[in-house]
Amino acid sequence: MNILVVNVGSSTIKYQLFDMDNESVVCKGLLDKVGIKGSVLEHKHSGNKTKRIEKDIDDHKTGMDMILSVLLGDRTEDVRIDAVGHRVVHGGESFSASVVIDDSVIKAIEDCSSLAPLHNPPNLMGIMSCTELLPGIPHVAVFDTAFHQTMKPENYLYALPREAYEKYKVRRYGFHGTSHEYVSKVAAEILGKPYEECRMITLHLGSGASMAAIRNGLVVDTSMGFTPLEGLVMGTRTGDMDPAIVCYLMEKLNLSPDEMNDYLNKKSGLLGLSGVSADLRYVIEAAETGNQDAKEALEVYCQRIKGYIGNYMAKLNGCDCLVFTAGVGENSSLVRERVLEDLDALGIRLDKEKNNAGCMNCDISLPDTPTRIFIVPTNEELMIARETLELVK
Amino acid sequence: MNILVVNVGSSTIKYQLFDMDNESVVCKGLLDKVGIKGSVLEHKHSGNKTKRIEKDIDDHKTGMDMILSVLLGDRTEDVRIDAVGHRVVHGGESFSASVVIDDSVIKAIEDCSSLAPLHNPPNLMGIMSCTELLPGIPHVAVFDTAFHQTMKPENYLYALPREAYEKYKVRRYGFHGTSHEYVSKVAAEILGKPYEECRMITLHLGSGASMAAIRNGLVVDTSMGFTPLEGLVMGTRTGDMDPAIVCYLMEKLNLSPDEMNDYLNKKSGLLGLSGVSADLRYVIEAAETGNQDAKEALEVYCQRIKGYIGNYMAKLNGCDCLVFTAGVGENSSLVRERVLEDLDALGIRLDKEKNNAGCMNCDISLPDTPTRIFIVPTNEELMIARETLELVK
Repeated sequence: MNILVVNVGSSTIKYQLFDMDNESVVCKGLLDKVGIKGSVLEHKHSGNKTKRIEKDIDDHKTGMDMILSVLLGDRTEDVRIDAVGHRVVHGGESFSASVVIDDSVIKAIEDCSSLAPLHNPPNLMGIMSCTELLPGIPHVAVFDTAFHQTMKPENYLYALPREAYEKYKVRRYGFHGTSHEYVSKVAAEILGKPYEECRMITLHLGSGASMAAIRNGLVVDTSMGFTPLEGLVMGTRTGDMDPAIVCYLMEKLNLSPDEMNDYLNKKSGLLGLSGVSADLRYVIEAAETGNQDAKEALEVYCQRIKGYIGNYMAKLNGCDCLVFTAGVGENSSLVRERVLEDLDALGIRLDKEKNNAGCMNCDISLPDTPTRIFIVPTNEELMIARETLELVK
Repeated sequence: MNILVVNVGSSTIKYQLFDMDNESVVCKGLLDKVGIKGSVLEHKHSGNKTKRIEKDIDDHKTGMDMILSVLLGDRTEDVRIDAVGHRVVHGGESFSASVVIDDSVIKAIEDCSSLAPLHNPPNLMGIMSCTELLPGIPHVAVFDTAFHQTMKPENYLYALPREAYEKYKVRRYGFHGTSHEYVSKVAAEILGKPYEECRMITLHLGSGASMAAIRNGLVVDTSMGFTPLEGLVMGTRTGDMDPAIVCYLMEKLNLSPDEMNDYLNKKSGLLGLSGVSADLRYVIEAAETGNQDAKEALEVYCQRIKGYIGNYMAKLNGCDCLVFTAGVGENSSLVRERVLEDLDALGIRLDKEKNNAGCMNCDISLPDTPTRIFIVPTNEELMIARETLELVK
């Protein structure tokens, strides 16, 4: 069975076509600058053929149409589409799992748009275009928030007046759920333990970054909150911060709530603190050549992660494994080492040699410690394809 | 030597006179509603004599004058004042210890007023009145923030653009320093270990609440931040929260930054979440009679504390003891039990019987666990008197 995975942003359409018989990628691509001048499609077939089309694309439906003609123009035995899995950022409290899309699902995704105004509307445009262009096959919505819906009120409620939750839907939702679910399931396999009996802490460290505490396959807590701003320090996002600072800086800088949101989401994080870059690799480079601001940015970044490891160790009462994933998590031995140093009292000891070797899907902890440490490459697209397969087979 | 400790709020003056030869309280009192109609002074002598004076007091200096005539009108061999210790909320980065007050100190406290606009101005009024009314003796300023000044940038910096720290002084300061210092020193005595060799976590749980991670007598991290809003759930304060919620709710509720600050500081916390009370005792009462909102408020309150224990265990790599203090910390066996349950993987196990007995200054942990647990009554006034004595003797 062939499943197309579609991830639509405000000006991009990413896609991958999977042959689910062996979970291989038949082809994939990215259409960039939809609705902007200079749109370009890069399409890659598994046989390494690459096609590049430069042509201004006015809207998502025209873009999707072009992608499908390229996809199906390549028609071989392999290239057919049996089902489509759509990434949807926000499912609110309506979706605790993936679902086959029908009118009521579309309505519910629309209802969540006020919670993710930058993401859900383009996700929906992708769904509308695809269901029109590919009728008669099942379309499935896979939500970034769904995996986290097992959290209990003690972890998802903020200490605000009740109206905030009841009227304005303000609560912790969490994001990156597809990634946390994917790597935690791989980790259970490496542990050789049933998924439903594992306690783990997953660390998705990319330009966006979040952690999750998972007990018996259920999310206990996660670091992103009402929005993807909360929690860890990210490329351009503050993560945790005294909420009073928002009011204080709005007055000092004379910013509106929208402008303040931009300040916290786009100008802060590693970029704001280091003054160098939102990309941790450049921050580390600068720190290594003596840039004091970059050094401090790196320290704040690592210390925040360390604090969350402890927080989640407490909420899980110890854990079987830590799972590092995404750009930084998979590739930065320095960050893993800094974050994990001096944690032996909590049962965490890194094997530095194995860490430096960076072996994927294997244990990089020292023997005879209660907590294993794994690096597991994430694969959100494959997870979306698996979820889709599960629902349509 | 007799030391007067003075704590001046916007409409209150609290004071205690200590005989430092034996650290006993000679007399103490509270002048309430300064500058408001219906001012009243309650003055208590150690011999249990109580004096109550109802008389409208227009300003802090008149109030201080009245207090001193009551104090010195009681003149016996004991009642004289050799030095005064003033509580000052915010010392910014200027003060990492208590200081004898002179003009430059007054200037520096004024400079910190923008960081604590509700607290430093009345603190300063108290200092001005007292130095005028009691000239020729040393006056000492003891800061709520000073003890926390040992934090390193990795814990005091927020991931904001540099201007926030460099131009607007936005960083973690921490508060309740006098209390954290006092109880941690008592705990070292109970442990029978030099203070400079202890790792501890102190939990000041009152209507305001904060925690501190202390290593070798130095604060590593603390939960209150730029303001006393951050960290734990408090009577009426949110504690930690996705900062994006501030912008979101300001727009939804159409609030100015000042109004939003009030919402987060005065309408949230236990009060907002339970709808019952800012006082945990009433929230627990309501929870026990089946009020679901109160139950959830209590759970959020306890879970937040548990997370911070883990966070600080990680930053300290284990610790010698947890120290509970202030109203809730000293008196609620329920909160201590809830917070500490299922933490044995981190080396923490509570002796429930000892916890229920609530023995002060003794160990309520189970034997053979690495982390001791103490309840230590706080005494900020005595700590201020000791600091003052240290500087003037």
